[in-house]
Amino acid sequence: MAYPYKKMTEEDFARIRSFTAEDRVWVGEEIPGEYYHDEMPEYGSYPPELYVEVLNKEEVSAIMAYAYKENIPVVCRGAGTGLAGGATCKYGGIMLSVMRMNRIFPVDHKNQTITAEPGALLVDIQAAAAAEGLFYPPDPGEKTASIGGNVITNAGGMKAVRYGLTRDFVRCIEAVLPDGSILNFSSNVVKNTTGYAVKDLIIGSEGTLCILTQVTLKLLPAPTCSATLVMPFKSLEECADMVPKVLELPFVPTAIEFLERELIDIVERTLNKPFPVQQGEAVLIVMYDASSRQELDSAVEAAAEAALSNGAFDCFIADTPERAATIWSVRGAILEGMKADSVSQEECDVVVPRSRIAEYVKAAKRIALSHGIRVEPCGHCGDGNIHTEMLRGPEMSDEEWKTATHACLTELYALSKELGGQLSGEHGIGNGRLEFLKEFVGPRMIALYKSIKLAFDDKLILNPGKVVEFQDEQENM
Amino acid sequence: MAYPYKKMTEEDFARIRSFTAEDRVWVGEEIPGEYYHDEMPEYGSYPPELYVEVLNKEEVSAIMAYAYKENIPVVCRGAGTGLAGGATCKYGGIMLSVMRMNRIFPVDHKNQTITAEPGALLVDIQAAAAAEGLFYPPDPGEKTASIGGNVITNAGGMKAVRYGLTRDFVRCIEAVLPDGSILNFSSNVVKNTTGYAVKDLIIGSEGTLCILTQVTLKLLPAPTCSATLVMPFKSLEECADMVPKVLELPFVPTAIEFLERELIDIVERTLNKPFPVQQGEAVLIVMYDASSRQELDSAVEAAAEAALSNGAFDCFIADTPERAATIWSVRGAILEGMKADSVSQEECDVVVPRSRIAEYVKAAKRIALSHGIRVEPCGHCGDGNIHTEMLRGPEMSDEEWKTATHACLTELYALSKELGGQLSGEHGIGNGRLEFLKEFVGPRMIALYKSIKLAFDDKLILNPGKVVEFQDEQENM
Repeated sequence: MAYPYKKMTEEDFARIRSFTAEDRVWVGEEIPGEYYHDEMPEYGSYPPELYVEVLNKEEVSAIMAYAYKENIPVVCRGAGTGLAGGATCKYGGIMLSVMRMNRIFPVDHKNQTITAEPGALLVDIQAAAAAEGLFYPPDPGEKTASIGGNVITNAGGMKAVRYGLTRDFVRCIEAVLPDGSILNFSSNVVKNTTGYAVKDLIIGSEGTLCILTQVTLKLLPAPTCSATLVMPFKSLEECADMVPKVLELPFVPTAIEFLERELIDIVERTLNKPFPVQQGEAVLIVMYDASSRQELDSAVEAAAEAALSNGAFDCFIADTPERAATIWSVRGAILEGMKADSVSQEECDVVVPRSRIAEYVKAAKRIALSHGIRVEPCGHCGDGNIHTEMLRGPEMSDEEWKTATHACLTELYALSKELGGQLSGEHGIGNGRLEFLKEFVGPRMIALYKSIKLAFDDKLILNPGKVVEFQDEQENM
Repeated sequence: MAYPYKKMTEEDFARIRSFTAEDRVWVGEEIPGEYYHDEMPEYGSYPPELYVEVLNKEEVSAIMAYAYKENIPVVCRGAGTGLAGGATCKYGGIMLSVMRMNRIFPVDHKNQTITAEPGALLVDIQAAAAAEGLFYPPDPGEKTASIGGNVITNAGGMKAVRYGLTRDFVRCIEAVLPDGSILNFSSNVVKNTTGYAVKDLIIGSEGTLCILTQVTLKLLPAPTCSATLVMPFKSLEECADMVPKVLELPFVPTAIEFLERELIDIVERTLNKPFPVQQGEAVLIVMYDASSRQELDSAVEAAAEAALSNGAFDCFIADTPERAATIWSVRGAILEGMKADSVSQEECDVVVPRSRIAEYVKAAKRIALSHGIRVEPCGHCGDGNIHTEMLRGPEMSDEEWKTATHACLTELYALSKELGGQLSGEHGIGNGRLEFLKEFVGPRMIALYKSIKLAFDDKLILNPGKVVEFQDEQENM
């Protein structure tokens, strides 16, 4: 193991420049503060010693081989839109940005795939597929995320109910290992049982096992039409009870979200975005994609009927893109609305079995209140991934807020575990949730995670201190 | 590392009996020969020293903890239907059968899942889901396989085009590690980014990393109707060219298979099963599932139209279960037909990009002929997984057959690699394809596989010599 890491010298800087180019390397105070953290500065702000923008896998390989030999930590950086404090230089060293490796290759129609470098933006991948009549379904909220970041964190999003996660669309990966080796994990094939499923382990490994240099993604034929239904209910419990009834219909919904009235009110009040349905303390939003109008009509009809016979006050059907936009723009503005309505926020990203959603939300509110915190749970009802947003009121001191959120998170994670849930559904562990992971998964699992980390990164130079932390065992840090 | 393994003693036998029961432990010659091999005795026949049938995870844990301490190899055995020589005691030791751990728990409707012990049969899982109006889609040919075996080898099958592989249906896994620890990998949740994706690595690891003791599987609403289309073409190339055109339609097909006339003739001749379409040197078989008759009709109409405008002589539509059965029973009888038509067989399970199927098949025939072997390629056109069955004629001696198949396989794997394919699409590495793996993936990947194996199994006691082989480095075997 590698502790303590080498403090970088002028010679190291010169070597990295020699592998790349003068004008793509910044050191020390030349590095803008935005690279000290991701979208959650609360999860740590750490200056890199050197920041480099790479152009190709050979540069990545040369940098890694050097860092491996010299014992210098390296953190790969995409668009920096993560929410777990993942892409940060916790132990200094090199921040390696792949944002200039952003080529998107022509759609491969025969294999229905698209290949891109890791710095390509999700929004550009989606557009490139759409321009060829195809469809890249994963749809996390943050469209300016890099595709490499999406793959390495297994990004989720609202359409996971029908289409699955980023994981489900990754055909193959080209990556550089900590020692500089360049390997391909699988190829452009639909199935593969050749050796261990390393590709599937890498997905979601948050940059701690290797650095992606190219990904090939599966595409689907684009759906030809869509509709969104809003089902207002008396309470969140009734909303949650409706979810399995929607899922039992022979039509697989694209998305199932829930919103409580309180949250809708916040968005309407702070952002002046009207929501088209005024009834109900909670609403279930169900979206369908279809390949024909008849199929869509059948799905909508069946879902509306099921809603009305299960206690919905009404079923509002938005079957034009414009009408659907009024619904989804309120759903999409939740985070912005909550930010406008509070001093700061802490978020909890647990996922529970679908059957326990209502139970979780009810208990989460009680727990938060007991710590003097206002929470607004919202999220992906179709997959049990509830973003329990904690909102800081103006009356709380920094210390009070910190203590209260920590105590609240501790209880929320225990609750999730008790309900058969998990610590994080789609945002990952990074640095921000690391301290809670050990308790959640237990010491044997942590030991296994550490063995896996070491199997890839025996010198612990790749994104150290994320997902797993060896520091606590080390004497000489 | 653990070589040489301990040779089991009477005391070891007594201890295993004490963890389980007298009448569930057999030793030495009490163990029937069928447990020396799987469905491919060609890939090795090895007597276990002890065979034990376990009833629960506590027994598995006790046996593993003991074996770990005493340095005894353990191989988990399901139904023994594997095709890679995987579930065999290559280094002696304990064969641990989970076939009495075959409980299937009631379907969880709210979460749309089913939980089972590893010894439950695939056919029984499918039936249990169907009895509740739900659907477990993975459909490998061998229905009497155990579900544990399906998960640990990531079984594929014909319906992968629409529904994916076994991997895509595994919600969570309970497993025993080589040291006897019992861990849960994920839980009954739809998404999870809590720590490394260990579950996804375990799937397909062929019993070399842990022993499954329980799996929870995702179910879908059952489709309400299906249809099968047969499109006869002039040549296999035209069949293969049709595949992307089928996939570009807005309806996702359930299965896309191809058959050459020669193979159809063999089945008709040897098994007296008539195939309903007589035209064409090759046929493409396309199946659609749908949730409504309209949707099905739209899909069938679009596919038939596409076939006719792309050179198909005709498009035979089987829209009743009876008519579809005449097609699928011929497809399902291929292996049996080839067995009836040859002295013995060797199989090659490569997967290539869909775009390279015709090229692969053409070259594979040429390669086989150059070694004096008859091959009949068939398989999953929708996913590029071609089972290149090699048939032994009565004129070949054992030695000739062995030499010729080895030379032929070497070339076929090189061809697959050149075309961007993989060594094995769904049958796995086991013992049978191990010698070809190193060349295929290269030394750095093999080193990574070994590190991963050691991360789970530092004493190399779990199914040793499968997927990865450490023996060649050891002096004291």
